Amino acid sequence: MIKIIVDAMGGDNSPNVNVEGSVSALSKISDIEITLVGPEATLNDLLKNFDYDKTRLKIVNADDVITCNDKPTEAIRTKKESSLYKSYELLRTQDYGGMVSIGSTGAILVGAITRLGRIKGVSRPALVPVVPTIEGDGIVALCDSGANAECFSNQINQFATMGSFYLEKAFGVKNPRVGLLNIGAEENKGDNLRKETYQLLKGNKHINFVGNAEAREYLSGKFDLIVCDGFSGNVLLKAIEGACMGVMKLVKHTFLKNLKTKIGALLLKKDLYAVKNKMDYNNYGGAALLGVSKTVVKGHGNSKGKSVFKCIEQAYTMEKSGLRTAITEGLKEETKEDDEG
Amino acid sequence: MIKIIVDAMGGDNSPNVNVEGSVSALSKISDIEITLVGPEATLNDLLKNFDYDKTRLKIVNADDVITCNDKPTEAIRTKKESSLYKSYELLRTQDYGGMVSIGSTGAILVGAITRLGRIKGVSRPALVPVVPTIEGDGIVALCDSGANAECFSNQINQFATMGSFYLEKAFGVKNPRVGLLNIGAEENKGDNLRKETYQLLKGNKHINFVGNAEAREYLSGKFDLIVCDGFSGNVLLKAIEGACMGVMKLVKHTFLKNLKTKIGALLLKKDLYAVKNKMDYNNYGGAALLGVSKTVVKGHGNSKGKSVFKCIEQAYTMEKSGLRTAITEGLKEETKEDDEG
Repeated sequence: MIKIIVDAMGGDNSPNVNVEGSVSALSKISDIEITLVGPEATLNDLLKNFDYDKTRLKIVNADDVITCNDKPTEAIRTKKESSLYKSYELLRTQDYGGMVSIGSTGAILVGAITRLGRIKGVSRPALVPVVPTIEGDGIVALCDSGANAECFSNQINQFATMGSFYLEKAFGVKNPRVGLLNIGAEENKGDNLRKETYQLLKGNKHINFVGNAEAREYLSGKFDLIVCDGFSGNVLLKAIEGACMGVMKLVKHTFLKNLKTKIGALLLKKDLYAVKNKMDYNNYGGAALLGVSKTVVKGHGNSKGKSVFKCIEQAYTMEKSGLRTAITEGLKEETKEDDEG
Repeated sequence: MIKIIVDAMGGDNSPNVNVEGSVSALSKISDIEITLVGPEATLNDLLKNFDYDKTRLKIVNADDVITCNDKPTEAIRTKKESSLYKSYELLRTQDYGGMVSIGSTGAILVGAITRLGRIKGVSRPALVPVVPTIEGDGIVALCDSGANAECFSNQINQFATMGSFYLEKAFGVKNPRVGLLNIGAEENKGDNLRKETYQLLKGNKHINFVGNAEAREYLSGKFDLIVCDGFSGNVLLKAIEGACMGVMKLVKHTFLKNLKTKIGALLLKKDLYAVKNKMDYNNYGGAALLGVSKTVVKGHGNSKGKSVFKCIEQAYTMEKSGLRTAITEGLKEETKEDDEG
């Protein structure tokens, strides 16, 4: 049995979507046990609407909630009755493998680092979203996407190791192609941080480094993993998000312009829906927080039930695949090589 | 008369588009004089196809060309017969106000810095593209978009001053709203560089600082100018470029799927063309290189004639508006305040 905690609060549509996603996971995955952490009475009320295997679902009561308006560090320190804090306490002290939350990213990060701690040898945990590429049917991971605004080259190099293990174990990507986010293709491009990191990546035996990746190549399918400092990773991710939403808005606006365009849109509806679907994060999991001592998956704040299920499935796969052990062993080797070198 | 040099080589479709754009500028702007720098015989041949005011067009011969495959520093040092090098020499030694090139960005930057030099008081020249926003009918400038991979806070603060003058003088934007590219809206967000820069921007009397700008807000119309280091600016710009092209490709692919979608696309063609048009940089000028002693505008490598014209018009407006003097005076004041403070 893989035991996963689901923080039932913190999202725009919590706890409904959290309950929905959990029930869905119980029906689709036979060897999963879920513990929902949140307001017991409300959760029980919601669960009445579903048919599920009651022996594999537990509820732990939590009356408070950490919202996006709370300051992360303060919230984790003071809101001890919140669903997120209590989830971390369960994860830390009991035999759970992983946790899913769709709450405040800041609080999830602070909680993971202060309550769980890092895997031995990890310098900085990183937040790693996986999105579909536009070309081909692949996926691409971005590490780090914003957990560390400031990074050293050895930390980005470690992101490459952790990210590669992640893609191999949780997504079955063989020998993932790693690119360094940079402002040009050639080896000598970028600032000092990039030049230093390039050399480390070239010498990293755990990864398949294929060179620099420009921001416009993010969704090109040429890379399975793009590594960077959290500042530029966050810029990249949010720029793509903004542009995709913006263009789709312009296109949609065009559809509603007059009768002719409305008829045209009607004819295209089904197929354009497939495009929208491809870009809808509800069809994919959340961002994994790599490098902490237990599995943590962070879903979008406005996730639907389907997306919460995907996050749970992702946490389950990460646990089942032995990813944490792989990272621990991999980094142990790396440190050993450094000591010998 | 405003005297502008047009480097006739270096673009994907040079010198045809450069000639086309120049002739177009002569017919549309009555007080402009243009000097085309490139292979004289070829240029004369091309010019035979056009009707234009011959008293306002000169040709200076240049037999060599700097391509994107040349190493910028080496090319500027050794290719003295190239159209770009010769353009800079004319600009430096004679009474020309500005120059337009659609050649190698690297070589244009190196040439500007080594051959022209900076305006007194300018720490780092910056490359500033202006693009249309998705919401509303406005424009947004990005400074720096890649000329300086590494920046200090005082340099980004200076980008804000130069960029604000630029928008006011060349585009008539009153009191441009300046945002700092960051990974969160609150004042204390980001790395140390961002925190320091935020404070400098808050105290900058020449600008209208409105706070942090997240990457997803780039085209939102909330900001007229976004300032950042050249690394993250380049990531932002190229991410947007990649995403917009990617989404449009997916949409186009959908149109060609079957007879039904083809009919739908036909009905929408004209209006979707307007969307594509809005996002086509050929309808806008190039990126201005702010902070060097003469006006330099860099157009896209695959510009059409229309886009070269827009670049020439932009260089003309920058010169005519007295932008260089405004920046010089503005920075003089700033330095004075610093000395007194």
